[in-house]
Amino acid sequence: MKYEISFTKNPAPKSKPDPAALEFGRFFTDHMFLMDYETGKGWHDARIVPYAPISLDPAAAVLHYAQEMFEGLKTYKTKDGDIQFFRPDMNAKRTNNTNDRLCIPQIDEDFYVDAIKALVEVDKDWVPDRPNTSLYVRPYIIATEPFLGVRPSDRYLFIIILSPVGPYYKEGLAPTRIFVEDEYIRAAQGSTGYAKIGGNYAAGLKSQEKAHALGFTQVLWLDGNERKYVEEIGTSNAFFVIDGEVFTAPLTGTILPGITRDSVIRLLKDWGIPVREERFTIESVFRAHEEGRLSEVFASGTAAVISPVGELRWTNKDMIINDNRIGTLSQRLYDTLTGIQNGTLADPHNWITKL
Amino acid sequence: MKYEISFTKNPAPKSKPDPAALEFGRFFTDHMFLMDYETGKGWHDARIVPYAPISLDPAAAVLHYAQEMFEGLKTYKTKDGDIQFFRPDMNAKRTNNTNDRLCIPQIDEDFYVDAIKALVEVDKDWVPDRPNTSLYVRPYIIATEPFLGVRPSDRYLFIIILSPVGPYYKEGLAPTRIFVEDEYIRAAQGSTGYAKIGGNYAAGLKSQEKAHALGFTQVLWLDGNERKYVEEIGTSNAFFVIDGEVFTAPLTGTILPGITRDSVIRLLKDWGIPVREERFTIESVFRAHEEGRLSEVFASGTAAVISPVGELRWTNKDMIINDNRIGTLSQRLYDTLTGIQNGTLADPHNWITKL
Repeated sequence: MKYEISFTKNPAPKSKPDPAALEFGRFFTDHMFLMDYETGKGWHDARIVPYAPISLDPAAAVLHYAQEMFEGLKTYKTKDGDIQFFRPDMNAKRTNNTNDRLCIPQIDEDFYVDAIKALVEVDKDWVPDRPNTSLYVRPYIIATEPFLGVRPSDRYLFIIILSPVGPYYKEGLAPTRIFVEDEYIRAAQGSTGYAKIGGNYAAGLKSQEKAHALGFTQVLWLDGNERKYVEEIGTSNAFFVIDGEVFTAPLTGTILPGITRDSVIRLLKDWGIPVREERFTIESVFRAHEEGRLSEVFASGTAAVISPVGELRWTNKDMIINDNRIGTLSQRLYDTLTGIQNGTLADPHNWITKL
Repeated sequence: MKYEISFTKNPAPKSKPDPAALEFGRFFTDHMFLMDYETGKGWHDARIVPYAPISLDPAAAVLHYAQEMFEGLKTYKTKDGDIQFFRPDMNAKRTNNTNDRLCIPQIDEDFYVDAIKALVEVDKDWVPDRPNTSLYVRPYIIATEPFLGVRPSDRYLFIIILSPVGPYYKEGLAPTRIFVEDEYIRAAQGSTGYAKIGGNYAAGLKSQEKAHALGFTQVLWLDGNERKYVEEIGTSNAFFVIDGEVFTAPLTGTILPGITRDSVIRLLKDWGIPVREERFTIESVFRAHEEGRLSEVFASGTAAVISPVGELRWTNKDMIINDNRIGTLSQRLYDTLTGIQNGTLADPHNWITKL
């Protein structure tokens, strides 16, 4: 390990939540990881301390100019009691890509993974073992310099917190209703779509609220220039199965490079199913549906893993996909990914790292 | 006043900074204003308390999804010792427009101004009176609910802090060197350009750093779709004087509706100078310069008021504007605006509110 991590044990551990009643991101464990950055000093003072409020100067840059990024990954307990992570190196790598876009200093990627492991080791009793539960890991970085001029901060705090979670959607693996957003956008070429920054999520809230008000689960984003090309679904990557081929938007700057997305593509290739990472229009999706060539639509992400889409509304057009049932490919991907993640299936690509 | 504001006096006031050495946004006064929001309860517990760190749960939404907005305005001390504000009602109105975009609850606009006044009254000894100094007021709102699901927070904190400031650019009113950004963008139609949200500023840092590295003061943003049309300069609105007419980008969703911008347009109209709020290309600006028809370029904003542009670089083209001297219109606007603001000139449009 490149940095020492000091440890202060929480003298008053909490009682753990009912594992049957776990929500997403509501409960937190007894400890958190912190590390400071200061220009000239670099990253320093790595420490695991009791989970507690963070004290910020009211002028801290993060509260004004949103110089902040985050990641998310899950930790699983296998039936043998092992604790394991799914591709944490990818989170470390994406953190540095995001940091580059946001003028946040780079972090040593090996240490990043070591820090996650060290924290989970301390709070390993919090990793739930019921089906569809896991310990969600949230690394994030905030700009802390108390200064109101608009420029990159000279101080940062890298934080990791842990949350035992149940399924992201309460209904579990069930088809969702998706509304195609043709007013607001998530990203455009030259903005921050490929980076995991707070501002992308704040900007998406209004569309999500609009979708909810209309009775939909989430929105499907179109491209920022022409509102023609399919980009993502909510905070997940989107896949469309047309004529037995799987289409998803390419990583050309506006799309978040999802780790589940990457894993889905790898599995599809393993299975000999053609994957086309290329631009395609929402119109072509509706045409394929009319012609009976669209068999499945699903979203992929860390929180929900695979989320099948049962209905898609675009302006005044509405389509029901696969009779509003979970598609065979969606189910197979979900079963395979969660099986690898929770240790009930083999791990052919070395995606799993044990604690 | 619609809400009571409680007051806790700071028992340990700070010594004030040297008024000759004031920077922008580095020093803060002895008190701050806070007000909480909770779904079902509304805005409540308005209070003025000693300036002190804010305590946030590590899972607070603002630190992850950047649900945060801010405003900025200045307070001036006249030579008669009066303390006055410049168009604070416009900040209140823009706050609610931004809140709407970010799913933050609306705030009573009259109370918003009253809260600013109440805080400045408490810390009025901090309003500096040297030329080109003022007390900068920073109202902002952050989402505080400790929850990692992506949706609008159910709790917010509205905060006002005060900072005695000198000129934004240390060199004062001096021509700046501006780099035309043709890679990254600030906004596109359907994103958040018209709203004053943290994420817009985080996204702009990288271009600003690129401009600095190349020896420029700031960037000029082009439109998000075609990289053809002029939008803003850094965090300011941009004006171009061509053939005696003043061009500035229209408020069609991607441009911040600057209060200084609005005031500049009003003054120009008073003076019988034609103002054209319409889209124009960066190419047309360079062509006008080649043809000797471009006489001035300047930026407008609360922090710097008016900032003349002396040089503009676009890919491999470079132009020197008005021999790199401050233009007559820039100077006149600066003198008039700062004169109205600090009370040495008459206020024909009732822009001034006294404490």
